[in-house]
Amino acid sequence: MARTRGLTGATQDVVRRHNLAAVLSGVHLRGQASRAELTAALGLNRSTIGALTGDLVAAGLVVEAVPELPGRSAGRPSLLVVPRDDVYVLAVHLGVEGVVAARVALGGRVLDRVLARHEDGGTSPDAVVARIADAVLALDRRGGPGRRCAGIAVAVCGIVRQSDGMVRMAPNLGWTDVPLGRRLAEIAGPDVPVALRNEADLGALAEHLRGAAVGVDDVIFVFGEVGIGGGVLAGGRPVSGRGGYAGEVGHLMVNPAGRTCRCGKVGCWETEVSIDALVSVLGPTGADRTESVRRVLAAAADGVEPARAAVEEFAHWLAVGVGQLVTVFNPEMIILGGMLPAVFAQVRDDVGRKLRAVALPAALEQVRLAVPALGGDAPLLGAAELAFAPLLADPLGVIDAATAT
Amino acid sequence: MARTRGLTGATQDVVRRHNLAAVLSGVHLRGQASRAELTAALGLNRSTIGALTGDLVAAGLVVEAVPELPGRSAGRPSLLVVPRDDVYVLAVHLGVEGVVAARVALGGRVLDRVLARHEDGGTSPDAVVARIADAVLALDRRGGPGRRCAGIAVAVCGIVRQSDGMVRMAPNLGWTDVPLGRRLAEIAGPDVPVALRNEADLGALAEHLRGAAVGVDDVIFVFGEVGIGGGVLAGGRPVSGRGGYAGEVGHLMVNPAGRTCRCGKVGCWETEVSIDALVSVLGPTGADRTESVRRVLAAAADGVEPARAAVEEFAHWLAVGVGQLVTVFNPEMIILGGMLPAVFAQVRDDVGRKLRAVALPAALEQVRLAVPALGGDAPLLGAAELAFAPLLADPLGVIDAATAT
Repeated sequence: MARTRGLTGATQDVVRRHNLAAVLSGVHLRGQASRAELTAALGLNRSTIGALTGDLVAAGLVVEAVPELPGRSAGRPSLLVVPRDDVYVLAVHLGVEGVVAARVALGGRVLDRVLARHEDGGTSPDAVVARIADAVLALDRRGGPGRRCAGIAVAVCGIVRQSDGMVRMAPNLGWTDVPLGRRLAEIAGPDVPVALRNEADLGALAEHLRGAAVGVDDVIFVFGEVGIGGGVLAGGRPVSGRGGYAGEVGHLMVNPAGRTCRCGKVGCWETEVSIDALVSVLGPTGADRTESVRRVLAAAADGVEPARAAVEEFAHWLAVGVGQLVTVFNPEMIILGGMLPAVFAQVRDDVGRKLRAVALPAALEQVRLAVPALGGDAPLLGAAELAFAPLLADPLGVIDAATAT
Repeated sequence: MARTRGLTGATQDVVRRHNLAAVLSGVHLRGQASRAELTAALGLNRSTIGALTGDLVAAGLVVEAVPELPGRSAGRPSLLVVPRDDVYVLAVHLGVEGVVAARVALGGRVLDRVLARHEDGGTSPDAVVARIADAVLALDRRGGPGRRCAGIAVAVCGIVRQSDGMVRMAPNLGWTDVPLGRRLAEIAGPDVPVALRNEADLGALAEHLRGAAVGVDDVIFVFGEVGIGGGVLAGGRPVSGRGGYAGEVGHLMVNPAGRTCRCGKVGCWETEVSIDALVSVLGPTGADRTESVRRVLAAAADGVEPARAAVEEFAHWLAVGVGQLVTVFNPEMIILGGMLPAVFAQVRDDVGRKLRAVALPAALEQVRLAVPALGGDAPLLGAAELAFAPLLADPLGVIDAATAT
């Protein structure tokens, strides 16, 4: 559909860059790919694919290998194009409970990871910046000589301004307007791009590229732990909004007669669908939230009050919010992540019934509710994809610039 | 950002089609354009632009003309590329009150239009199909010899399945599951593509391409007459959802303690922000809804009850719904269309105050509320853009196929 006055023309150089991007993205997402697979998937002829992979080999991004095919000795098999794992990114998940950082190779393999919990030093901006810097520097040192870090990206448990990585609001860290993007960019230096996004936005991206929503272009990732975050893809593309704040479904107002949210508004979805409120119905809880949830669900299953009523209430508001998302986005899949799968497994029928009362029927019949395929790693792996994005979009441009310094 | 496993490569043929599409789209959206403008806008060199426009001239889509520049006699001015107005589409708005159809030329000029009100024959599917067919056939006959109809598109006051134009639900017509797309395709025959979409989705597209939201990539069009429809663009692309139902913001649940909606659910936004309910507070209304709204607003401005309270209530729920959209989509602009601008003009301050209580602050500071630049024509003009989409996407492919028959 005609969509912009700014549609630009394609020159030979643009075409070559586009095709290099297509080949490298294809190899990255598949982990590895034969030339024959790439030829078929990209609709280019064999000699073009050969020339493009040659360029990527020369740029030090991939190697070509003869596949070992047991039981097949005749004929010339199609060369395998394999990403070099000394080309990697540093991905970080800045979550409620701590920092997880990983070195992720081109091709998507996690090479190694480190974990640093907040409790050891608080969540002041200085402490968190130091925690992230220590983690990524420790990982970066593990790369051998000739290693190439293509970028750093951080999934944040808060609302992030896309343009500069300013964390506008992260109640679980006690943050308002912390310039995390700028501070990390200062540490990374001018040659390594740094990008930040909301954790649920990146969870949605990871599940779309490598998880439960592969091949699903209209998908919403709802991440429920202390609060509720959301990430939306429409037509296979992230819905980011003007500033990068789109998808803040936890602050949808679902109950005008509800409680006051940490954000100051009333009746936000995350005040009604609160894991913390759910587990507190049986009195003070221990540090292990997963265990506390299990205890409440078991009591509810046995009909013990107030656990039974609390779980019923939780299911009601879960359905109300999910119903809003179905009505507004007409998604093919909604992925319930974080602590939600445990509860959802027990209240699936209740939620389904209630959804029929609150969601647009035409849209409801097209949606599937699912749980993450990547578990708690979705935001981290989404951060890795974000960090790889500049390299994948323009493989030689980024490398040329990096080797020129 | 890496977004799909299916990124395809670009061959020479794909590149030429892309560039032809870029040139024709550029000319279409500007009405006309000089070769120099196209060269600058598309980033291609002059000889490439010359060859591409030559192809489009040969295909009978555009003509080239020497511009008349008063006061300038020396030098060779850049040729103007002008769309041929015997290349056109037939656009239809099937609204609550009737059918408006227009013949719209390449370049966007409305050549002529007809109006047929429903009251003259009801809204049974047979009657409406006949009404649309009569209108488009009458318009089509006005094209001269050698005329070319590139497509037909209909903006529908209901929920439309994108794949086949099935109208799933159109309460104002009394329709459920009416195969309008199939019936119109039978009338149009195999050579003329027929497409249908929701009226607000097309209103959003038209305002983005030619109206209040030119240059604004994250925009929501809210169309309030009898009900409330919505159309969303994110990153310059329509958010359609799996089946084409996305953006049904009228059925967002804003008031769990509210009234039952025509859709059967409770507390939908369109039951709380209802023009019909608003005007009925002063007793039975006449046929002219615009006049009735004016009467209620005047009474409210004078403090006359129950008009004053009704308008205050309307403003409250208008803000609640707009606030949800701000929080979820982080749009740069929300356009209030249909009968909403008249009310909004009077309650702007109330709505602004209330928004601060219900919308996510970071997102609220980035949004502008606006009224349509295209007035009531937005859905009709959006239908024209939809009808032009196949031709603009592949100018020679469509024409080749059409002339081959």
